[in-house]
Amino acid sequence: MSSPRLAVIGLGLIGGSLARALRSAGAVGHIRGYDTDPRQRRLAVELGVVDEAPDSAAAAVAQADLVVLAVPVLHTAEALRACRDGLRPGAVVTDVGSTKQSVLADVAAVCGVVPPWFVAGHPIAGTEKSGVANSVADLFHGHRVILTPHAAQDAQALAAVTALWTATGARVVEMDPAQHDTVFAATSHLPHLLAYAFVDLLARLDTRDEIFPNAGGGFRDFTRIASSSPEMWHDIMRANAGPVTALLERQLGELRDVLDLMKGGRWAELKALFERARAARERHLAQIE
Amino acid sequence: MSSPRLAVIGLGLIGGSLARALRSAGAVGHIRGYDTDPRQRRLAVELGVVDEAPDSAAAAVAQADLVVLAVPVLHTAEALRACRDGLRPGAVVTDVGSTKQSVLADVAAVCGVVPPWFVAGHPIAGTEKSGVANSVADLFHGHRVILTPHAAQDAQALAAVTALWTATGARVVEMDPAQHDTVFAATSHLPHLLAYAFVDLLARLDTRDEIFPNAGGGFRDFTRIASSSPEMWHDIMRANAGPVTALLERQLGELRDVLDLMKGGRWAELKALFERARAARERHLAQIE
Repeated sequence: MSSPRLAVIGLGLIGGSLARALRSAGAVGHIRGYDTDPRQRRLAVELGVVDEAPDSAAAAVAQADLVVLAVPVLHTAEALRACRDGLRPGAVVTDVGSTKQSVLADVAAVCGVVPPWFVAGHPIAGTEKSGVANSVADLFHGHRVILTPHAAQDAQALAAVTALWTATGARVVEMDPAQHDTVFAATSHLPHLLAYAFVDLLARLDTRDEIFPNAGGGFRDFTRIASSSPEMWHDIMRANAGPVTALLERQLGELRDVLDLMKGGRWAELKALFERARAARERHLAQIE
Repeated sequence: MSSPRLAVIGLGLIGGSLARALRSAGAVGHIRGYDTDPRQRRLAVELGVVDEAPDSAAAAVAQADLVVLAVPVLHTAEALRACRDGLRPGAVVTDVGSTKQSVLADVAAVCGVVPPWFVAGHPIAGTEKSGVANSVADLFHGHRVILTPHAAQDAQALAAVTALWTATGARVVEMDPAQHDTVFAATSHLPHLLAYAFVDLLARLDTRDEIFPNAGGGFRDFTRIASSSPEMWHDIMRANAGPVTALLERQLGELRDVLDLMKGGRWAELKALFERARAARERHLAQIE
């Protein structure tokens, strides 16, 4: 079989990096891309990320064996609708969204049901940077990609998407969509919310102009994710609001407990909490990519 | 003038790194060290971090022109008391604690007043690692060191400590002690509290064994400071409890607002918060060490 032809809808950090990775691995043939922003389309061609960037999604997918939707999660339905009429028979469509139940629901809303040729996926990789200009070929190397197969899933479509990600150097893991959303609410969505809220708090203090110049390396790393794309993270919070708000409520409870410990002078208990947290992080550190 | 003789009380990451940095810069002569833990004393000598590590603080400081207290902040009084009788006339004593009002109060408690020869200091550098085994000569290079002069401060003592830190490649900045404690409650103490509480929340979830293996780079950086020394951070929270609890209350208020936005479907406001936070971080990023 000749190399599959690829179409990437959404030429941002993830879409651009996937195109670069697959090109560099020699895992795909011709690559077309589409983005609603003409500057990203132009840039993607100029940078050699894609071979062509036609001015419609339907034209971008017309010849493709594999179509990757790499848009903020709440744009999934719109992106699928835009390319659907151009899809050739047998084409496999996948996505890279950080929430999986919402994506499957949106696909079902466009197609009536989730079609066998749609594979829901989520690469656990990225940086706080956005845009095709920041895309790199090794973004997924050594990282996990979660695929969440659905009831009507075609096995060949699943195998094709697994092969796609494996070619980037990623490790593919399958998971139930609901489990995926609960797990990533904890490891990824809640920390983004906490980091944004923390930086916003400081930015609104009267003393902010004294504060930021005195931030050190701990601050820089803790807040790195607060430089992530507001549009992308707005979509994720909205698409996964249930699991995220449930966890945020628990986090508020734990922070109220911490405040009570400090106000009540219960220092041994506070230290025990720090020790538990450090031990948990150290125990799992080897597993953290 | 010949090179000053140095004594370091507390042979951990900071004390050990300072000794290495000053040795490597040729800025000090003989270096003695002391730690209440005999293993750290032995290791400091074996690693060449100090020339000698006698088994009392008073013996360690007996010949020293400059004495650095590099212990968890709540051990400042105890460390000063232990070495006070050994101090030679004219010796300058400084510290590296993350809180400055508590240190000055503890020094006053030991000496009756804060003596002219005591200089309160705080290097804005460190890693989540602890112990002399992790000390490195370039830890302070390019970083800030805050000195908080007090009413009775001797100018020569201040100049000697400024010269000490400058020799490590750090940039010395002077600040009022109360201002210092408010600023670092925001940039450092609150984020440590948030990171510990976040990891502890996840570690107590029933689903923790699914959660941690799915953590990515964002999680790793956001939680890095939760691997910091529980003893050191217990001391800091206790020593700076006023400013930290005041900020934690404001953070709780902001997180309750975030929860209300999500539950009320006020998504545009949530996105505006993300945008404000990202803009504030990006605006100040160049200043963050």
